[in-house]
Amino acid sequence: MNFQDKLNKIVEKNNSLLCVGLDPDPLQQDSLKEEASSIFEFNKQIIDETHDLVCAYKPNIAFYEANGIEGLSELKKTLDYLKTDYKEIPIILDAKRADIENTAKMYAKSVFEYWGADATTVYPHLGFDSIEPFLSYKDQQTFLLVKTSNPGSGIFQNLKTEQGPYYLAVAKEIKKWSRGNIGIFVGATYSSEIRKLRELFPDKIFLSAGVGAQGADLKASVEAGIDKAKKGIIFSASRSIIFARSPGIAAQNLRDEINKYRSI
Amino acid sequence: MNFQDKLNKIVEKNNSLLCVGLDPDPLQQDSLKEEASSIFEFNKQIIDETHDLVCAYKPNIAFYEANGIEGLSELKKTLDYLKTDYKEIPIILDAKRADIENTAKMYAKSVFEYWGADATTVYPHLGFDSIEPFLSYKDQQTFLLVKTSNPGSGIFQNLKTEQGPYYLAVAKEIKKWSRGNIGIFVGATYSSEIRKLRELFPDKIFLSAGVGAQGADLKASVEAGIDKAKKGIIFSASRSIIFARSPGIAAQNLRDEINKYRSI
Repeated sequence: MNFQDKLNKIVEKNNSLLCVGLDPDPLQQDSLKEEASSIFEFNKQIIDETHDLVCAYKPNIAFYEANGIEGLSELKKTLDYLKTDYKEIPIILDAKRADIENTAKMYAKSVFEYWGADATTVYPHLGFDSIEPFLSYKDQQTFLLVKTSNPGSGIFQNLKTEQGPYYLAVAKEIKKWSRGNIGIFVGATYSSEIRKLRELFPDKIFLSAGVGAQGADLKASVEAGIDKAKKGIIFSASRSIIFARSPGIAAQNLRDEINKYRSI
Repeated sequence: MNFQDKLNKIVEKNNSLLCVGLDPDPLQQDSLKEEASSIFEFNKQIIDETHDLVCAYKPNIAFYEANGIEGLSELKKTLDYLKTDYKEIPIILDAKRADIENTAKMYAKSVFEYWGADATTVYPHLGFDSIEPFLSYKDQQTFLLVKTSNPGSGIFQNLKTEQGPYYLAVAKEIKKWSRGNIGIFVGATYSSEIRKLRELFPDKIFLSAGVGAQGADLKASVEAGIDKAKKGIIFSASRSIIFARSPGIAAQNLRDEINKYRSI
């Protein structure tokens, strides 16, 4: 089943646009979850408490790479667990890769074949030849990072160009590529950018991070990001869920708040 | 010893601006080096034949990630070998990472602490807050990817902005950050961009890939890239060296050709 069908099914089943970011910062994890004996056990607790409240899980591979091969072994266990016990929930491996074509092939092989992710995140700044190796995995979704959620992103991403701010010029070019398995990543902290991108891409799936710890205006972002069917966007939160005293309650509250602004 | 001192010493000792990219594409490797029993053994052969001809080694982590944890174990063995037997040669881990600040800290921890690289490559497109975690490792060099070597890079990187083409606008902003351990990555396939960047950064260390298989005009790139002391730029070649019948001879020829254009 391709990513989009898988996503649509779980969005309906769990009535949710919420994605939980499995980003186990070793330092914060130790202080809050002393009972977890490993990163995998920490993740497993989160997954077991939130699996009926989410439309996707999004491990950011950086948090595993920080601990090297040992950390990546914990990621492997986490993905194996998801694929066995919760195989209806899509996995977005947030890897933020990009390189020239022959190298991009290697990254695509890694995220889609070795890790077996349903989707990933990729920078578009090298142009189409660098993206095509990811897009050639047709059942998988490649979210292009058009506008990131961090405070400093404007300095380059909103630089004025002949075709509007840089992020929008990039988006207009991406539109020409007209591939069905391209998704758009836009930070939830920038609702006016979300609105402009939704106008440009009425039918594309968006991935948006920054709700929760990064302090996005959730109402504005939800209203700007949903498509005509009041879905079509995945809101990812990490720290505010996984380091909460009760990840299940935190996830339920955030799912419900998103749904409130969807007006469904 | 910091990266720059380490680099200067080996540039003198080996009379070389050549960096060899340790990018063992599994498919090509199998056909050409049947005697190598593992990726590490393949790399070890290259290193043993070229260590007195180079100023750096640059493994691109994508080629290891393609084989998952097993591939990364081969990278670990390769780096351990370099750090033990050839510790005077700097290691540039070509990882092309970038993420928001709290995630960038994890990537920086991975490349500089876990992998123990002397330098890495990072996209600047998220702005300063995303780069600072890398720059805080003061003895390590962070090469910012200003202009990539691929054919399609111009579509975004040469987009016209208020401050010139996008790559140059990015470079002008990077100059304001005035940190000594920032290096500049520019594709060797774009000599006129190298020249403009050298004018902007007369004293910075450049890293340039694309000589060899990607067909850069070596004479133009060397003349454009060298600083006043006829060094200050590292030229990296991968496929044309590591898949040559004799990597040692290929490396020697390329080192000597670069030196010819340096007019030293």
